[in-house]
Amino acid sequence: MTTLDQKIEQYAELAVTVGVNIQKDQTLVLNAPVASADFVRLVAKKAYEQGAKNVHVEWHDDDLTRIRYDMAPLESFHEFPEWKARGFEEMAENGAAYMTIKATDPDLLSGVDGEKIAAANKASGQAMNTFRTYIQSDKVSWLVISAPSQAWAEKVFPEAKGEEAMNKLWEAILETVRVNTEDPVAEWKQHDENLQTKARFLTEKNYTKLHFQAPGTDLEIELPDNHIWIGGGGPNKDGVHFVANMPTEEVFTAPKADGVNGTVSNTKPLNYGGNLIDNFTLTFKDGKVVDFKAEQGEETLKNLLDSDEGAKRLGEVALVPHGSPISQSGILFYNTLYDENASNHIALGSAYPTNLKGGADMNKEELEQAGLNVSITHVDFMIGSGDMNIDGVKADGSTEPVFRNGEWAV
Amino acid sequence: MTTLDQKIEQYAELAVTVGVNIQKDQTLVLNAPVASADFVRLVAKKAYEQGAKNVHVEWHDDDLTRIRYDMAPLESFHEFPEWKARGFEEMAENGAAYMTIKATDPDLLSGVDGEKIAAANKASGQAMNTFRTYIQSDKVSWLVISAPSQAWAEKVFPEAKGEEAMNKLWEAILETVRVNTEDPVAEWKQHDENLQTKARFLTEKNYTKLHFQAPGTDLEIELPDNHIWIGGGGPNKDGVHFVANMPTEEVFTAPKADGVNGTVSNTKPLNYGGNLIDNFTLTFKDGKVVDFKAEQGEETLKNLLDSDEGAKRLGEVALVPHGSPISQSGILFYNTLYDENASNHIALGSAYPTNLKGGADMNKEELEQAGLNVSITHVDFMIGSGDMNIDGVKADGSTEPVFRNGEWAV
Repeated sequence: MTTLDQKIEQYAELAVTVGVNIQKDQTLVLNAPVASADFVRLVAKKAYEQGAKNVHVEWHDDDLTRIRYDMAPLESFHEFPEWKARGFEEMAENGAAYMTIKATDPDLLSGVDGEKIAAANKASGQAMNTFRTYIQSDKVSWLVISAPSQAWAEKVFPEAKGEEAMNKLWEAILETVRVNTEDPVAEWKQHDENLQTKARFLTEKNYTKLHFQAPGTDLEIELPDNHIWIGGGGPNKDGVHFVANMPTEEVFTAPKADGVNGTVSNTKPLNYGGNLIDNFTLTFKDGKVVDFKAEQGEETLKNLLDSDEGAKRLGEVALVPHGSPISQSGILFYNTLYDENASNHIALGSAYPTNLKGGADMNKEELEQAGLNVSITHVDFMIGSGDMNIDGVKADGSTEPVFRNGEWAV
Repeated sequence: MTTLDQKIEQYAELAVTVGVNIQKDQTLVLNAPVASADFVRLVAKKAYEQGAKNVHVEWHDDDLTRIRYDMAPLESFHEFPEWKARGFEEMAENGAAYMTIKATDPDLLSGVDGEKIAAANKASGQAMNTFRTYIQSDKVSWLVISAPSQAWAEKVFPEAKGEEAMNKLWEAILETVRVNTEDPVAEWKQHDENLQTKARFLTEKNYTKLHFQAPGTDLEIELPDNHIWIGGGGPNKDGVHFVANMPTEEVFTAPKADGVNGTVSNTKPLNYGGNLIDNFTLTFKDGKVVDFKAEQGEETLKNLLDSDEGAKRLGEVALVPHGSPISQSGILFYNTLYDENASNHIALGSAYPTNLKGGADMNKEELEQAGLNVSITHVDFMIGSGDMNIDGVKADGSTEPVFRNGEWAV
């Protein structure tokens, strides 16, 4: 019988070896909340065991974030420390690997002045733009994982409290990342290979368009010439294989920035910067959102769409069968990392250059020229359900089923 | 009856208002351990209440520091993130105030490879050199305080454990910073004025030399022309009054870098980067350490002296009566902030430019020319006791008693 502590240690090891796949003498940069200090120390130990030269931790704290939003003046949020953004770029240029541990309370920013949030997101988006292009083009190995925080755990399991809720969320997370299997590393290698195979299949299909149909959704998404579907891990610019999300159940590609038409409705709430947006509908014309409404968080949605021009267009379309383990768990995590892997989803904002042949070496103008969306933001939201059908349209205009009733039809 | 929580809150307020004396729309930069997160949040709230624009926290973690020293390769310690040093400079140039919260386990680095520690201190010393000159010349407001950590508290109160030890150390700290009085702010203003008065008196005396005599100590320290004694708070370059240490019981000035002769023995252990050096003696000739021995930590002492040329010379001489409250508490804090305020002390390494008339506007060469020591390090150690006598030598060669039996004689 493996104890929870042992499983958490396996998880830390999986993140370091299979996730960022740390190399000897490499620096690991960890973004983590102070409340996850125990887990951070565990990850650091595993990284050093693998030969890491240094583990640099950039800490943050939910409570301080909230205190700042409540008490600091608006002008404070228009500023972002440029030197820190330069530091992230510099470490990336020197070949560091990046791991982010997300544990944010989904309700952290509820009730906070939306203008402050929008200003903060814009300031960090602009300052961190170069670093984000490094991440999105897989210049470096990177990984996003989560660890429970008490507030988040109590949100997901409202009937539990304190340590009980934390332990339940740990178990749920460990289940999604396959640590509850006999050989998690072997499981991950098989799973990774399956996703890569599915992605290659779709890339070869070379659909010109996908047509999504479900209650509240009738959306056509054109795909650019030379688009690539990605699933599972892939190589960074030095050829080191890494897996950027744990869990990951999706295969995804880039939409054509001016080729999205129709209406789409979300099927799970979107947690944006700590605020929930739910029961919302977006209407697109020639790629751009021309109408929107939301029963919850409409103001937040408006701020998101106003981040910049690219925030009104799509940058990702991702396919996840409704029968995926996370979906079947029935747990709403209020955390995109899990919820997006339970459902077909699309993203407002920038596209991944790696979703285009040669895209990783293109600059902003070349990517736009090739049909990809460029933005300071990238926000996923969930549109999948057991009622969703997706057709693939081929170059000759013929269609074939890709999804039926929320499951792969290919 | 004031509860411990209420007193801790008063302490946070005292640090923000009397210590760094935060101004409206100013940024507060906090250096703090993740283990002190609760206290950090309290300080942040007090800063925002006073109108701070932003509170930027640079976190660190004792456990991660130790994991790194134990597991990372030596070459890792020759590097320091230059971008972070530039960030500290940039925030200072934009007028930020700096507060450091020290809570380090005194035994944190015991048994760690001294070469790693020396490399790390040298790398950070060099990278942070410009920022240190900003601090040492009072370009910005700055403050060093402490908060208990469990390991430190159990070291100071070995008979107690866990929360009991933490609470005992909190009470001891709060006592030293006068929070246990009816009106801590008024107490501080009076105390600050007393120290300033004593400093003005010594500056006017304009001694050319101090002669220290005690068991194991017979040391002559020349003072440079135009030296200034400092005690209590003072103005930053914008004229804002701040108090750099809480507690503070000392008045101090700069020695003449080439004018120190004789032998000195420590009276309390020196905690250098987490390693203790104790029962040590230094012999000076023309300002430079020409011989040294230590019963404990001799290797650490050697590494300290080898940091650079200036590490072998004195940069500070400070007077504290043996009857000071911290001395009388009889508590050995294993933390220079407290222990130096219990005892006469001197420091190896750089002198404070503010201890020289016009020094804050001088560059490194001008300071050296004026007789001040320059170094990448500054390490205080305690030499005072109830047996110490100090004579002041005037320009005409006459002497007068400054200290007798550890107490002020003037």
